[in-house]
Amino acid sequence: MAGNRTNSPRVGELRLDVRRDVPVALHRQIAAAVRAHIRSGRLPIGSSLPPTRLLAADLGVSRGVVIEAYAQLTAEGYLASRPGGYTEVAGGVREPADRPPVIEPAAYRIDFSYGRADVAHFPRQAWLRSFRQVLTTTSTPEFALLSGRGAPALRTALADYLNRVRGTVADPRNIVITNGFAQGIRLLIQVLADQGATRLALEDPAPDDDARPAALRAGLAVIGVPVDEQGILTDGLDDVDADTLVLAPSHQWPVGGALPAARRAAVVRWACERNALLIEDDYDAEYRFDRDPLGALQGLAPEQVAYAGTLSKTLAPGVRIGWLVLPEHLTDAVAEAKIAADRGSATLEQLALADFLVRGEFDRHTRRMRPLYRARREALVAALHRHLPGARPAGIAAGLHLLVWLPPDLDEQELADGAAKLGVFVQPLSRYRIAPVGDRRGALILGYSVLSESAIAEGIALLGEAARRLRR
Amino acid sequence: MAGNRTNSPRVGELRLDVRRDVPVALHRQIAAAVRAHIRSGRLPIGSSLPPTRLLAADLGVSRGVVIEAYAQLTAEGYLASRPGGYTEVAGGVREPADRPPVIEPAAYRIDFSYGRADVAHFPRQAWLRSFRQVLTTTSTPEFALLSGRGAPALRTALADYLNRVRGTVADPRNIVITNGFAQGIRLLIQVLADQGATRLALEDPAPDDDARPAALRAGLAVIGVPVDEQGILTDGLDDVDADTLVLAPSHQWPVGGALPAARRAAVVRWACERNALLIEDDYDAEYRFDRDPLGALQGLAPEQVAYAGTLSKTLAPGVRIGWLVLPEHLTDAVAEAKIAADRGSATLEQLALADFLVRGEFDRHTRRMRPLYRARREALVAALHRHLPGARPAGIAAGLHLLVWLPPDLDEQELADGAAKLGVFVQPLSRYRIAPVGDRRGALILGYSVLSESAIAEGIALLGEAARRLRR
Repeated sequence: MAGNRTNSPRVGELRLDVRRDVPVALHRQIAAAVRAHIRSGRLPIGSSLPPTRLLAADLGVSRGVVIEAYAQLTAEGYLASRPGGYTEVAGGVREPADRPPVIEPAAYRIDFSYGRADVAHFPRQAWLRSFRQVLTTTSTPEFALLSGRGAPALRTALADYLNRVRGTVADPRNIVITNGFAQGIRLLIQVLADQGATRLALEDPAPDDDARPAALRAGLAVIGVPVDEQGILTDGLDDVDADTLVLAPSHQWPVGGALPAARRAAVVRWACERNALLIEDDYDAEYRFDRDPLGALQGLAPEQVAYAGTLSKTLAPGVRIGWLVLPEHLTDAVAEAKIAADRGSATLEQLALADFLVRGEFDRHTRRMRPLYRARREALVAALHRHLPGARPAGIAAGLHLLVWLPPDLDEQELADGAAKLGVFVQPLSRYRIAPVGDRRGALILGYSVLSESAIAEGIALLGEAARRLRR
Repeated sequence: MAGNRTNSPRVGELRLDVRRDVPVALHRQIAAAVRAHIRSGRLPIGSSLPPTRLLAADLGVSRGVVIEAYAQLTAEGYLASRPGGYTEVAGGVREPADRPPVIEPAAYRIDFSYGRADVAHFPRQAWLRSFRQVLTTTSTPEFALLSGRGAPALRTALADYLNRVRGTVADPRNIVITNGFAQGIRLLIQVLADQGATRLALEDPAPDDDARPAALRAGLAVIGVPVDEQGILTDGLDDVDADTLVLAPSHQWPVGGALPAARRAAVVRWACERNALLIEDDYDAEYRFDRDPLGALQGLAPEQVAYAGTLSKTLAPGVRIGWLVLPEHLTDAVAEAKIAADRGSATLEQLALADFLVRGEFDRHTRRMRPLYRARREALVAALHRHLPGARPAGIAAGLHLLVWLPPDLDEQELADGAAKLGVFVQPLSRYRIAPVGDRRGALILGYSVLSESAIAEGIALLGEAARRLRR
């Protein structure tokens, strides 16, 4: 090895190694070494470099090699030529000090937070087969296409799937593929605001991390419409003055209701009367345990409903594919907003999902996961019954979470704080309320999708322990 | 097959097929068929359905099956129960009429538009290997992680790559992964506006589809700083009052210069003096043909420069991965903006790219593509010399496009229009100018990355033909 090296002379006081046994041009090696010395501060600004002739002799290389290295660093702004033929250090910065590697900590031992598919069961082999299929067979033009609407093959496969399984009336031309639900709702709300919308109604309580911040950023006023355990309350809807209403009729979040037919009709009537838009958040509709899923609201009124779905709850949050099925008059504007935001979603991933859907793998996956989630739900309900008697689970018919109403003597925030001290993460309901309400019953939101049955039992036992401590 | 069917009675005047040879519950088949009839308009609103007992007898199924089907459709809002035990159609919509399938037309026969890697040479096998590696070995927690900054493995691999090849000083903790350059620049500009920036300077001419619309949407004033054939002009920089300057020092777009050292220093000095941010668009720096690439500006002043890169030009536009290397004080805010926009980029794709970089596949790919693009560039320069004498190519040392300055007697727009009539797409320079300038020489932007050498020769011959027709 030493025999392959040239000499190692010093630049100023610094060693400079140049090797002939690596396939990197000598001038680039010299430039890299000098650059590193400048950056580390070992060659300070203003210090002189050895004349090219001397350094070349020391290194045993031709003078042209050193000239080229200096020229490169001069062009980059690290070196400057000074009168008299000297070359000195003109710029440069310190390397960042060594810092510990990037780590994202898991803060709780048992985490009942919500919104994730259990990726331990991600269908890795089937997904890889779809990827291989796409990489093997996709034509170059299809591969190269980047589109605001999304890959035609995926839009066609999704329309088929949603029309078959979710009862939508979806036309591939009115679908826009987005990076999950989060991007979809954001782009849609931005488009509505650009078109003159000023007031957005939401279920109260509702998620606080998608439609709500998007509306506030777009300058829309946000109005809460109360829900009960069946979903949004439609009695007072005539007094709700809004351009848009976001709702989750298949499984309200977080309370858990499935909207009854009469209320569905009332919501559609409300939207038609004022030409408002309904945004249907078709929230984990695939996971309904005790009866057939209700068809999507969109199927009843496709020109009044923008239907939004995602893979985050069914496949994996890291597969960033969501979709909007839009009324025809909104599709172009939303597709343009998607182009402005990021030019379109990743083509390969879209084509892989299309293949995955067409081959029935998605159906197989949700069918395989359903009994697994159901068993976790049952473990959770049983554990609550045992360790938190007097608490009442709600919204258990579907989804990957439930709500548990607390007995009047337990404060939800105190109980959540007590559980946190025992290493258990649970969320109180009230942080998701938009307006203060008379009904101040406490409740906790318990996501169970990624926890084993034994972790669920242990977590709820600890929650019961936290409740006992509070009552003491 | 007929033996597997039940009877096919009519609902009203409509046939209703129910099959026992498919693995779909009978009540769901009935519900689906009735739903389809309602949607198609064949069962109009208000029409009555047969009593459950009769339909069950006709179909040869138990009455409970029909009751369940009707209940499902009632819950969905398609049917309603009427006094007297009747069930009638309550809602529903027409299916969209048959429309032609989704097709995205290719408008031109020879398309010199810019900005795309040649995906015909996409390294499909190597990419698939990286995907397989990721799907086989990634741990569940890494798989499940969705982060505003991006996958730690990718940020580490990218920092290594950029520091080695592009001369940056990148720390993985200050990298944010985005969906291509487009999303990165948009999020960054939004963050700057939120923090109080009011004026954004751009090279003039510059692309019109990323920083410019993002700045206008964020409410920033846009200021153009003229460029010459070496890049941005720094003489008048002291008079430029802006919080931010976007520039492409390695290869200005569209004029094509590589910024000389003195101007690099002047730009950094300008930014330091007013604590402005430089956004470095490191535009196709990997494709430099005639000499070593210049190191990134970011390496000179990492706390003053936000460095933005993308795979669109090197790998494929449909692999939606770009990156920002940020000054430390901006990283958290940009990562939060990314979470707000779409919760983070696709995990699998990020991990695959990390593997692809670490295994040296990315280096191999750019090394393989360089001679290919160089040959196309040479074909283009030769064809221009032959068919458009008097025109002068510029910015040919790097990248996937060049600019050709036209002789004074040729108007750029007229020539582009003439070429379009012959099936050739070229872009005039002036649409990318921010301010009108005295120098009204015409120029065309010619992207050559996805065209074969023969297509290039044919396209430029047609361009020459268009010029001849104009001169007649």
